[in-house]
Amino acid sequence: MIVALAGGVGGAKLADGLYRVLPPRQLTVIVNTADDFDIFGLRVCPDADTVTYTLAGVANPATGWGIADDTFETLRMLGRYGRDVWFQIGDRDFATHIARTERLRSGASLTAVTAELVTALGVTADILPMCDEPVATQVMTPSGPLEFQEYFVHRHQSDTVTGIIFRGIDQARPTGAALGALREATAVIFCPSNPVVSVGPILAVPGLRERVARHPGPRVAVSPIVGGRALRGPADRMLESLGHEVSAYGVAALYRGLVDGMVIDEIDASLAPRIEALGMKVLIAPTVMTDSNDRSSLATRVLEFCERIGQAR
Amino acid sequence: MIVALAGGVGGAKLADGLYRVLPPRQLTVIVNTADDFDIFGLRVCPDADTVTYTLAGVANPATGWGIADDTFETLRMLGRYGRDVWFQIGDRDFATHIARTERLRSGASLTAVTAELVTALGVTADILPMCDEPVATQVMTPSGPLEFQEYFVHRHQSDTVTGIIFRGIDQARPTGAALGALREATAVIFCPSNPVVSVGPILAVPGLRERVARHPGPRVAVSPIVGGRALRGPADRMLESLGHEVSAYGVAALYRGLVDGMVIDEIDASLAPRIEALGMKVLIAPTVMTDSNDRSSLATRVLEFCERIGQAR
Repeated sequence: MIVALAGGVGGAKLADGLYRVLPPRQLTVIVNTADDFDIFGLRVCPDADTVTYTLAGVANPATGWGIADDTFETLRMLGRYGRDVWFQIGDRDFATHIARTERLRSGASLTAVTAELVTALGVTADILPMCDEPVATQVMTPSGPLEFQEYFVHRHQSDTVTGIIFRGIDQARPTGAALGALREATAVIFCPSNPVVSVGPILAVPGLRERVARHPGPRVAVSPIVGGRALRGPADRMLESLGHEVSAYGVAALYRGLVDGMVIDEIDASLAPRIEALGMKVLIAPTVMTDSNDRSSLATRVLEFCERIGQAR
Repeated sequence: MIVALAGGVGGAKLADGLYRVLPPRQLTVIVNTADDFDIFGLRVCPDADTVTYTLAGVANPATGWGIADDTFETLRMLGRYGRDVWFQIGDRDFATHIARTERLRSGASLTAVTAELVTALGVTADILPMCDEPVATQVMTPSGPLEFQEYFVHRHQSDTVTGIIFRGIDQARPTGAALGALREATAVIFCPSNPVVSVGPILAVPGLRERVARHPGPRVAVSPIVGGRALRGPADRMLESLGHEVSAYGVAALYRGLVDGMVIDEIDASLAPRIEALGMKVLIAPTVMTDSNDRSSLATRVLEFCERIGQAR
């Protein structure tokens, strides 16, 4: 059993690779929920949905998020009703949010609801929210605090991030499902997601960082920073403005004490000695995933790396 | 100022005729809300929406309800999530229910929310829910009680109706907007809607029947029963199983003391003496509305009839 920690599109790609190369029911993805928010009175869980849609094979290949070939009639009509429609939700995607909101309002946990959606889409991996309590990332910027989707989608990540708050995280608790998966995990894989606002919230759930820190199996992270730049999203700018080195080394430094190995891109091979000096093993591999073969290949390399680390112990 | 009482498709047609022939802002439609229900966690108001869509010119001409050329991707996806999808909601129609539910949950009244939707669609008539409190029609049948949409849509009105309950009606109150419209109304028009489950609930809101009964201006009803049959829906079978005569006379008898005049179809001309014996004036006119000209023509005839009744007083 493998546990992967993931945020949105980048994390979903490696999760998909793992899903493709592992036997059925051998993968659990713990997803960030600090991006979740309410819009139009519906609960939207961007990272959980991106991972679910990706593993279900229905993700929009052009954007990475949303559903392939989705239409936007509901959103257009909401615009006619005077609603702000900067957050793009397709008609099929709306069904996910409607179904989830209905179940949450009836008292079901986010873990239970997510499992229902995942199962309905035929996915044979477990996709677990990092916690059932609502947590909301706020980014501090020179213009004041911004809700995450306001910063991320509406303002196109154009603000300088000077701080991060995970509102509600103190009330969050690791779920029984997440703890159970970690207990059975032979390895924990940190997907190439934003270490600050995607993997960061997962580790910030009280108890989870400690649980990962003392995990007996190999723990491996794949750097989302390649050649000093984020493959997508604002991770590079965020690391910089928060005072971290914008490199695979900077990511490794953030994960110090939590991972046994870092997977870095070939372009970053020269960083290996510095990362090894942090006490980590390093795997140098092609980490840019442009198609599904890339995802499977990287997943296979990462799993082999985990195995080697496990045997060396 | 004209006040029309209306249910769904049949009522919406005459309301549309009135809307077309009256000057802007001279029409208020008080709509039945006892068909309203929750589905997928959203509040659906079939009659209010049918009247709104019809007056906005966006109603589906084939069905009378829903939005023209709507697509059904959201509903199809909800089916994939295991939801019962017997109640047809199109993608644009979903936007209405999402927008309404969001506003209701934020504490807005149904009257206020309906006005927002009506205004957004460019309708210059007032469309008022009969009350802001939730009321739910239940029909008693040999197989037990059924929620209205279960009876009406899911079971295709195939059950014999032995009784009707408007659950919650005792807690309902006429809205200030409805009372204000009735105060300013020169005439009250009962649209050709089901007298039992469409106009019936409106009159059952405590105080509204009395308010209409003592209305000083002319009050005229258009029979939804033509040639002994309902033009659409189960009104004919319902009248019969509830022990009423299935005719324009049967409808007039139900409205006794509430209306001054009945508009009946040419095919029912022979019923005029019996209806007049109830103390009502009768207008014999073509009442079947197959196109928008029919709607306007009937509306014009009905308004002239109101005027004649008013002058005769």
